[in-house]
Amino acid sequence: MAAEAPKMYYRMLGNTGLAVSVLSYGFWATFGVKDTLREQDGINMAKDCLRLARKAGVNCFDNAEVYGNPSGEAERIMGEALAQLRQEDAQLWRRSALVITTKLFWCAQGDEGTVNEKGLSRKHINEGIDASLKRLQLDYVDLVFCHRPDAHTPTETVVQAMTDLVRSGKATAWGTSEWSAQQITEAYFIAQRGGMIAPAFEQPQYNMMHRERFEKEYFPLYRQPYNIGTTIWSPLASGLLTGKYKDGIPEDSRLAQKGYEWLVKKLDAWKEDGSLDKVQKLADFAEKEFQCSTSQLALAWCLKNKNVTTVLLGATKTEQLEENLGALPVLLKMTDDHMDKIDEILGNKPEPWLNQQRPIDLI
Amino acid sequence: MAAEAPKMYYRMLGNTGLAVSVLSYGFWATFGVKDTLREQDGINMAKDCLRLARKAGVNCFDNAEVYGNPSGEAERIMGEALAQLRQEDAQLWRRSALVITTKLFWCAQGDEGTVNEKGLSRKHINEGIDASLKRLQLDYVDLVFCHRPDAHTPTETVVQAMTDLVRSGKATAWGTSEWSAQQITEAYFIAQRGGMIAPAFEQPQYNMMHRERFEKEYFPLYRQPYNIGTTIWSPLASGLLTGKYKDGIPEDSRLAQKGYEWLVKKLDAWKEDGSLDKVQKLADFAEKEFQCSTSQLALAWCLKNKNVTTVLLGATKTEQLEENLGALPVLLKMTDDHMDKIDEILGNKPEPWLNQQRPIDLI
Amino acid sequence: MAAEAPKMYYRMLGNTGLAVSVLSYGFWATFGVKDTLREQDGINMAKDCLRLARKAGVNCFDNAEVYGNPSGEAERIMGEALAQLRQEDAQLWRRSALVITTKLFWCAQGDEGTVNEKGLSRKHINEGIDASLKRLQLDYVDLVFCHRPDAHTPTETVVQAMTDLVRSGKATAWGTSEWSAQQITEAYFIAQRGGMIAPAFEQPQYNMMHRERFEKEYFPLYRQPYNIGTTIWSPLASGLLTGKYKDGIPEDSRLAQKGYEWLVKKLDAWKEDGSLDKVQKLADFAEKEFQCSTSQLALAWCLKNKNVTTVLLGATKTEQLEENLGALPVLLKMTDDHMDKIDEILGNKPEPWLNQQRPIDLI
Amino acid sequence: MAAEAPKMYYRMLGNTGLAVSVLSYGFWATFGVKDTLREQDGINMAKDCLRLARKAGVNCFDNAEVYGNPSGEAERIMGEALAQLRQEDAQLWRRSALVITTKLFWCAQGDEGTVNEKGLSRKHINEGIDASLKRLQLDYVDLVFCHRPDAHTPTETVVQAMTDLVRSGKATAWGTSEWSAQQITEAYFIAQRGGMIAPAFEQPQYNMMHRERFEKEYFPLYRQPYNIGTTIWSPLASGLLTGKYKDGIPEDSRLAQKGYEWLVKKLDAWKEDGSLDKVQKLADFAEKEFQCSTSQLALAWCLKNKNVTTVLLGATKTEQLEENLGALPVLLKMTDDHMDKIDEILGNKPEPWLNQQRPIDLI
Repeated sequence: MAAEAPKMYYRMLGNTGLAVSVLSYGFWATFGVKDTLREQDGINMAKDCLRLARKAGVNCFDNAEVYGNPSGEAERIMGEALAQLRQEDAQLWRRSALVITTKLFWCAQGDEGTVNEKGLSRKHINEGIDASLKRLQLDYVDLVFCHRPDAHTPTETVVQAMTDLVRSGKATAWGTSEWSAQQITEAYFIAQRGGMIAPAFEQPQYNMMHRERFEKEYFPLYRQPYNIGTTIWSPLASGLLTGKYKDGIPEDSRLAQKGYEWLVKKLDAWKEDGSLDKVQKLADFAEKEFQCSTSQLALAWCLKNKNVTTVLLGATKTEQLEENLGALPVLLKMTDDHMDKIDEILGNKPEPWLNQQRPIDLI
Repeated sequence: MAAEAPKMYYRMLGNTGLAVSVLSYGFWATFGVKDTLREQDGINMAKDCLRLARKAGVNCFDNAEVYGNPSGEAERIMGEALAQLRQEDAQLWRRSALVITTKLFWCAQGDEGTVNEKGLSRKHINEGIDASLKRLQLDYVDLVFCHRPDAHTPTETVVQAMTDLVRSGKATAWGTSEWSAQQITEAYFIAQRGGMIAPAFEQPQYNMMHRERFEKEYFPLYRQPYNIGTTIWSPLASGLLTGKYKDGIPEDSRLAQKGYEWLVKKLDAWKEDGSLDKVQKLADFAEKEFQCSTSQLALAWCLKNKNVTTVLLGATKTEQLEENLGALPVLLKMTDDHMDKIDEILGNKPEPWLNQQRPIDLI
Repeated sequence: MAAEAPKMYYRMLGNTGLAVSVLSYGFWATFGVKDTLREQDGINMAKDCLRLARKAGVNCFDNAEVYGNPSGEAERIMGEALAQLRQEDAQLWRRSALVITTKLFWCAQGDEGTVNEKGLSRKHINEGIDASLKRLQLDYVDLVFCHRPDAHTPTETVVQAMTDLVRSGKATAWGTSEWSAQQITEAYFIAQRGGMIAPAFEQPQYNMMHRERFEKEYFPLYRQPYNIGTTIWSPLASGLLTGKYKDGIPEDSRLAQKGYEWLVKKLDAWKEDGSLDKVQKLADFAEKEFQCSTSQLALAWCLKNKNVTTVLLGATKTEQLEENLGALPVLLKMTDDHMDKIDEILGNKPEPWLNQQRPIDLI
Repeated sequence: MAAEAPKMYYRMLGNTGLAVSVLSYGFWATFGVKDTLREQDGINMAKDCLRLARKAGVNCFDNAEVYGNPSGEAERIMGEALAQLRQEDAQLWRRSALVITTKLFWCAQGDEGTVNEKGLSRKHINEGIDASLKRLQLDYVDLVFCHRPDAHTPTETVVQAMTDLVRSGKATAWGTSEWSAQQITEAYFIAQRGGMIAPAFEQPQYNMMHRERFEKEYFPLYRQPYNIGTTIWSPLASGLLTGKYKDGIPEDSRLAQKGYEWLVKKLDAWKEDGSLDKVQKLADFAEKEFQCSTSQLALAWCLKNKNVTTVLLGATKTEQLEENLGALPVLLKMTDDHMDKIDEILGNKPEPWLNQQRPIDLI
């Protein structure tokens, strides 16, 4: 289905004025695995994926200080890969054409990190961004995220530090990841009250199996004055929606790796709660309606929601990435009727955000 | 246990500067039942309950434009009862000693209500408060609630109208009921930005069986700068926590009445989800630890949470009310250890509000 | 086509929280013609139209201090008619179900008006509203308009006076009529800056022949933060779009009356600029596609634009009003394709608001 | 007439505190024509014009990232020319004596520009100004313009980015070009609300043939609190007002060049709509009253409007520039009576901004 690279489409990311390709490329759990790869092998794999994505029209590349093993490696490898790619084709990889992100909260020190090397103090934000930019070999990122809320740092302190980070030119906009709707609202108004810069986007988990927060809690944030854009992670529900776990854990999957015991545990839960049955039904539906894979259906389904700005693809192999890019033609064919049928299979559609306590026949 | 009227205690209601008795008396589903009672009989029952509550130190009396059958009757009866009580004992019932509330959203027109006779437009807020005050025979209420969020009226419009209602002297403070944390946060900041009056309290459902929103979603609102007070409804979970449904529906309970089919349905659900079993365990615990009823335990448990300002009692018979007031001595004996044991029985303690992504050994 | 009264639909009027019927009834040029009618005859005609409109679901009734001959008569007659109708059917005509408007700028003194009896000084706003309410026999109107911008009164002064008028309870929201987009924007921000109430709606001329301002200049105002609602006047272009002038001036039309020389002049212009030819084509299109009248097509066309909240109908005869109400079923059948064909006939579609200097393939 | 360099006059540019010569020199469509000129020839021509203008007292030099062919060349050539001129005469060309501008929106990548390389996102504003400053060989420009409104970037985002650009010292003030009055008003108030820097000037098209927007739509902006300055482009209406097209297209005019087909088309329109006749009358009037050229009359006419801060001259040859500078003595002789006569010839005087709905005999 994705034999030919599909035309790329864009969505405006919240209030940033930036157009982001609806499919983005994320460096989570990718390449920065020092112990299993020789240096340049990892870089080459990254370059292959980056090249494929860029040529398909992807303009957004997502990273975080904590990504990679050890932390920081994902940024280092992406930075080196981009530098090498710019040597290959300066025009395709010129800085102004790319939207590059990082996320700050957990440091690149991993378990060595002491009490002030994590979180959202101005100290860590300042130290974190400088270390990230160095690893990325960049003067600035386009988007910087607060990777989690920090229970120990008041929102006003965070907004001040993020504002100054943007004003200093080290990022062009800032956002949040896995903050509550209440926290984002608070940050928005604290920024506005103080003549500071409000968060413009959020990076939440969103997929067919995990809908409540994205569809319900965040709902008011997609509207004015917040107009929050979203870069969603885990669109394939940790791989569940690839269908690859239907018959147990494949040997080459992440689940077979050390450090992924949590995923194995999850798999057991999926079996028990009927998720695997749903995946089978989705696979049949995908095949019958679109002759596409379950992954492609799952990715297209995310994008059918206009509140999703871009879906992060986390593939580490070019074949997998190419397959994922094939979600775009599926999206173009998907109707509201298809969405209703998928909702029937999923059986987890959240209630509408507001109770209709005041019904009116609007036209 | 409550043979002697217990001393009353108070809590400050958010930022209002008002001290509210920790047990309040609510007029929901009470007395305004035109078809089953002769006029003065209803008023007399109301007076008996009001007199008992007041003498026990209750100073807060809760109502809403929509309460009663037909809507508006609960206010009318309370208004008339208060007027008659003031004739009996002017000192006890003087206006300045009482905290009287109403709630606006659904009108007193019931099903006849047209599109603009519900909701939170300034038109309905203005028309609603005037009609309520007339029924209550009052010049002002102390607390006025937005009884629900209104999907059709922007928050700024609501805050303006509520602010002007307070400024006009028709209420002394305003709050919300069943708004989301995000909506309350938005209202707070919109008020602050515009030099207007912020909502100071919320009336949510809260009881042993329904904890998530109160304990988790609202958590940040109990702190600065919001400092939201709460007047909680359904502390006995629609009667479940009285223990009276353990052996089916008693004939004289609300559930036997027309219009309460939803409660019957709920009862079935309680059976199935194990709630009735938990109630049995709570009953045993209450008896063993405090020689009190399940209701008293449940009410005291609510008040043990310092974020509860006052618990609304909805009794329609004096015996029932007297029994409920007996929760106060239980509260005085309740320890953190008791609370832990109750949590074990309930098994529904919400996760802490913020994931501890940045653990620090604080002392 | 309108043999049976059509079901009514509503639109939310800007930020007011008020639901307004998509067809409203306006008192411009109606009834207040003292010299040609005996008092009660005029009131009866008004009552017939009001009754018909209300029974068809119309909930919004538009007036202005300057309407009628002499000025003020339209309000006086509507006030008396409403009072009499409320005697007939208190439920149908209860105040809270109605959205009643007036507009202030030109006084009810007509040519006798001295320099401070017109305009938007606080003096005239205060004096004007009190006189209007007296004529209307009301305590408050729901909507009050600044009937024109006042070159002699700074916007801040106007916003203050209108805000206080709303806060005093004499109106529940305020708006503008024939202000420029720049003026409305200025008023919005001055209100927000000062913790005052912003204008929530505008009453502009809008019809098939007069589109530029509504579709282009006002375009940004329909969006956040302004969210301006509109109550449009002259939807039939001073009668041109009824088709009745195709063969000259009918004797019973307004154009035959003294004081309507401007309309006669307009008619000449319509002949010359090809408007009458377009009307003929529209009549054919209406007949062929919807078997409806040109008026019904023209009214439905207005409502097809979602930025129109309500269309003011100015009929003075019940037959004419009934005919106009028949626009609603036409609206339900109208497609985007129909709109394109009408645009072809009209040939006056404004350019899009913003030049697309930055084209992006959005999806 | 301009044998002797005329004394220069200045006007204050809005709220900037900067005095700008009433005639400025603009680099639109000039010099950056790589294919028709050898590098140093282009620079020399630029230097000749710059030298002439500067010696005549011009202190303002206008440019944009998009000017030149390819885009960016106009800035590069001006930058190099200024550097060389400073070698010639350090005193005359010292930085602090000059007011240098650029405009951001379309990038210097031309058709290669991808979705985020145009518009008014903070990313493009940051990247654009840095690229412009590099081409101009400067540390800062004095004035930076948003070259168009950006439909994809909220005004608040633009105001924040422009404010920070000024605060960073890369420009000393910012303005707009071809924004609507509504947009400028919005930007003004958003800036004020957030403690940010408001746009202080606008660069609109303005000439005898194109008056509506400048004289009517922008009218309120020339007054407090906006006090917008203007640097007007196309004062000679794409050459129409030079009179050179009266007898067809001269071979050496821009219209004979590829890429100017739009001008040829315009010329046809001018013939048809009577513009060429008006130009003839203006030529006669100029000769009779001032013994000056049509151009000089047209330029002086612009400056007679006190809301014009400076008129951009776009000449590419010194003779032409010298001729244009001769408008200044004409301006000194021009009376209101002359203006009335020119209005008679033009027949396009816009209605006054505000309808005089409230006429008062003011003195």
